Amino acid sequence: MKYTLGIDYGTNSVRCIVAEVGIGMESASSVWTYESGKDGILLDPSDHNLARQNPADYVKGLRITVQEALASAKESIAGFDPSQVIGIGVDTTGSTPLPVDKNCRPLAISEQFANNLNAQAWLWKDHTAYAEAEEITELAKSIKPEYLSICGGTYSSEWFFSKILHCLRVDREVFDAAYTWLECCDFIPAVLCGVDDADKVVRGRCATGHKAMFNEAWGGFPAADFLEKLDPAMAELRATLPEKTVPINTAAGVLSAEWAEALGLPAGIPVAAGALDAHMGAVGSGVGRGKLVKIIGTSACDIMVGDKGGEALDIPGLCGIVDSSVLPDSWGIEAGQSAVGDIFNWFVDVICPGGEKEGSHDNLTKEAAALKPGQSGLLALDWNNGNRTVLVDQRLTGLLVGQTLHTTPAEIYRALIEATAFGALTIINRLAEYGVGIDEIIACGGISEKNALFMQIYSDVTGRVMKVAGSSQTCALGSAIAAAVVAGEAAGGYATVEQAQSAMCAGPSDVFEPNAANTRVYAELYALYSKLHDSFGVEGTQIELYDVMKQLLEIKDKTQQAD
Amino acid sequence: MKYTLGIDYGTNSVRCIVAEVGIGMESASSVWTYESGKDGILLDPSDHNLARQNPADYVKGLRITVQEALASAKESIAGFDPSQVIGIGVDTTGSTPLPVDKNCRPLAISEQFANNLNAQAWLWKDHTAYAEAEEITELAKSIKPEYLSICGGTYSSEWFFSKILHCLRVDREVFDAAYTWLECCDFIPAVLCGVDDADKVVRGRCATGHKAMFNEAWGGFPAADFLEKLDPAMAELRATLPEKTVPINTAAGVLSAEWAEALGLPAGIPVAAGALDAHMGAVGSGVGRGKLVKIIGTSACDIMVGDKGGEALDIPGLCGIVDSSVLPDSWGIEAGQSAVGDIFNWFVDVICPGGEKEGSHDNLTKEAAALKPGQSGLLALDWNNGNRTVLVDQRLTGLLVGQTLHTTPAEIYRALIEATAFGALTIINRLAEYGVGIDEIIACGGISEKNALFMQIYSDVTGRVMKVAGSSQTCALGSAIAAAVVAGEAAGGYATVEQAQSAMCAGPSDVFEPNAANTRVYAELYALYSKLHDSFGVEGTQIELYDVMKQLLEIKDKTQQAD
Repeated sequence: MKYTLGIDYGTNSVRCIVAEVGIGMESASSVWTYESGKDGILLDPSDHNLARQNPADYVKGLRITVQEALASAKESIAGFDPSQVIGIGVDTTGSTPLPVDKNCRPLAISEQFANNLNAQAWLWKDHTAYAEAEEITELAKSIKPEYLSICGGTYSSEWFFSKILHCLRVDREVFDAAYTWLECCDFIPAVLCGVDDADKVVRGRCATGHKAMFNEAWGGFPAADFLEKLDPAMAELRATLPEKTVPINTAAGVLSAEWAEALGLPAGIPVAAGALDAHMGAVGSGVGRGKLVKIIGTSACDIMVGDKGGEALDIPGLCGIVDSSVLPDSWGIEAGQSAVGDIFNWFVDVICPGGEKEGSHDNLTKEAAALKPGQSGLLALDWNNGNRTVLVDQRLTGLLVGQTLHTTPAEIYRALIEATAFGALTIINRLAEYGVGIDEIIACGGISEKNALFMQIYSDVTGRVMKVAGSSQTCALGSAIAAAVVAGEAAGGYATVEQAQSAMCAGPSDVFEPNAANTRVYAELYALYSKLHDSFGVEGTQIELYDVMKQLLEIKDKTQQAD
Repeated sequence: MKYTLGIDYGTNSVRCIVAEVGIGMESASSVWTYESGKDGILLDPSDHNLARQNPADYVKGLRITVQEALASAKESIAGFDPSQVIGIGVDTTGSTPLPVDKNCRPLAISEQFANNLNAQAWLWKDHTAYAEAEEITELAKSIKPEYLSICGGTYSSEWFFSKILHCLRVDREVFDAAYTWLECCDFIPAVLCGVDDADKVVRGRCATGHKAMFNEAWGGFPAADFLEKLDPAMAELRATLPEKTVPINTAAGVLSAEWAEALGLPAGIPVAAGALDAHMGAVGSGVGRGKLVKIIGTSACDIMVGDKGGEALDIPGLCGIVDSSVLPDSWGIEAGQSAVGDIFNWFVDVICPGGEKEGSHDNLTKEAAALKPGQSGLLALDWNNGNRTVLVDQRLTGLLVGQTLHTTPAEIYRALIEATAFGALTIINRLAEYGVGIDEIIACGGISEKNALFMQIYSDVTGRVMKVAGSSQTCALGSAIAAAVVAGEAAGGYATVEQAQSAMCAGPSDVFEPNAANTRVYAELYALYSKLHDSFGVEGTQIELYDVMKQLLEIKDKTQQAD
């Protein structure tokens, strides 16, 4: 029996699983919450855009979770021995870049910069660089529009170059002290492999794709003369970035003797090139042709793959189509909804705080489940946190229409779930329009496991089978799959990611089939959703909306007549 | 010292006040809650459209409240004697018709029909006749469009002929047993005056105006050949309706000896022709040229007067422009909003039931008062119960736009108040467009007395002075004013309603002045409200709405920059 480790760095904690190679389930796991800041995040009370993390937490959490996971495996798996571990995979949040010196040491661990927030890791949800994001977008629009074509037309404040440029602007000392910046997902494998030269760090394709505008078509990272126009120092940074970035079936290196000893693992086992958590979650959920994986949490990340034909895949409004970012030699396609669970949490926690009894998710879900599609007469837009796909516009807000004096919280709750499902369908339709067909949807994340109503509504709205991923740790499992591939067949692993997925991804824990009658009603509602979507979200649209309230009432009346 | 009685029949109770003529305030009062049904309303569990009242309650309540009010006056007013009462005025809900026999006795008090709901008074909010209302509307559209021009293009299920026709259709026995039907506001004066011949009942202009399509231009009530097309029996009913109806400065008769004795009042004092409560509330609030009276409760009724020029006043979307329905020899103009307080109650009671502490009106008002106009980024349409003016469309619903994940209940609460204020401004603008200018607004009803934030928002949104009526019983006071006019100068009363108002209406209990800076922000928000109003409410409208969310965010940003 062989095993691999999958290490998953989330926003608040890091998790390590020990996965049996070929069994289809993780066997042991351990979680450790970062000890710095609030829930692992360093904040600045005077700037709500700031969100940083202490790289020392990453390293400490690596040691603790691997040791504990191995200890747990020894207890729970008869005959387990760490020598059976044949590889390690790592995924992290991103874009979460951190400044390092030439020896690959984070500036944050130096005495000089230990207390400097700008020397820490810039967490994915740090938005301090919003002005720099606009600056990069404007520059690219005028001289390198192709750079934007892969990221939906707008470069984000959450991404690599925005953050580095912001650091340059606000803290030149940190910027100058940094030899280069590494994505968290590249930093951790480098640590495990004992890399002590920043030029030798292997960088993963997944995080560098649209988030760092890496594309082989224009020679990898953005050209030095482009970055120079932002600031000459950015061109110097460019010189520290490698020519190539690699997919997850490539090793970032092998486990160093020092870390092997510290963790009690065999030295020399391969460590897979790091990737982003959502993408590895998709791998661990069994993403493949025709299979959309939805990682559903506070927001939703949609991951798909597309056949790599001769031409680049260009789908308007999709922010993130990158060669080999998910599966090697396929288009990795990323889409998303800026808020899903967050909308339900907002409604339950803030607007309708009825407490345990009346206003809880459980109770509202129960009441909402008793309603028929269209029965409430309500329709919502799911834009309380903007729209990531297909409008790529943060300056959009929520909308609810159809309220009467009899509208109940459960009706609104259901309308909000439906709104997110309509948003999901809009993404699917856009993909289908450009040749990326979706036959089934695999969901992972807490909501998919806990809320059958949510899953059924998604199935009914999309008219597609919805499966719940077999693992509740799909990100870590994806990393463990990557580890099994870089370990290779000879060591007891696999030749390809697809083969490893077939063996290691468990079957779905639940399956929801669309109800045809519900799907018909939702088709009527979706036509109205689309009108609102285009009216409020697409510049230049003029559509008559007089029929929206009327039709919602007619659909509602029909559900009552059907009783 | 002279006094008049104002008797006000509400939905759940009847009230009598003793008003000093010339002092400007009521001096004593008494209230009695109807004893039949639920809160005075007879319901049918199998038909939520049904709402009836027992006419015996009206008569019993008349006796009790007058006697108690007089007793109270004797206690509270030094030297008061009932012989100083020089007249009586009556107002009631409406259209609230009841079937009576030739001797003017309600069928409901006969043994045969005592338990028959169709023989009772059909309360204003009874909607059983919705099909008949459509039938009447369709017929009028095709052969007598002028009938609809005075009631906003749609005849309502709440009104006189719809209800009678429905009775004819569902209960021929009651219809046939009735000699005629009387509005409640005409029935009570007839009772007081001892009228025992239904042909001799004086009918008031106020209730017969648009609600019974009475107009001198076409010879009073709708023509017999029109009613005959609905049903031949309706033409027979037409024969029992008088040629003339009268304004409130006309006596319906004089107090009968029998009722004088029962009440302890002088026989022979005049009883004013009855009118509807909202209209008399306007009179009691001091309605006049340039002064809009808003009776604000669960819904809002707007009453104005317009100069009677040579031509009939025709304002699209205004349901109720009737010659002399408010003040004699002026256009009485009625408008309204289908829900005001009901929207706030729905939000507090149903959606955000935080209880006494968090979710109460008081607490939400306090939090909402701390917000600046535009600060929430929210905008709502006030159509949770349809739109009475200027769209005249029950098939409209609520809308809320601008929600983020940070939106609070108090922000929504304030947006709902603002939405009703924008609805009020839409009515004012429509009036101004057609030459009925409004300089100040006088509000009466509980919300106006209790909620200073509501009043200030209305003042800021409309850019007009908002006054709170000096009396909290403006309907009964209006009736007492009518009584002082029909009593006449010789008896110590007044020659005109205007003179009586000057003397008997107290000054405002509170005055709110518009804040210019707030008015400017609200002008920006109102422009967006109007876009939504027309897009969702006016057939054939195609407007670009892409800027709505953007502008709401910009206005919100500006309020933050102003800090």
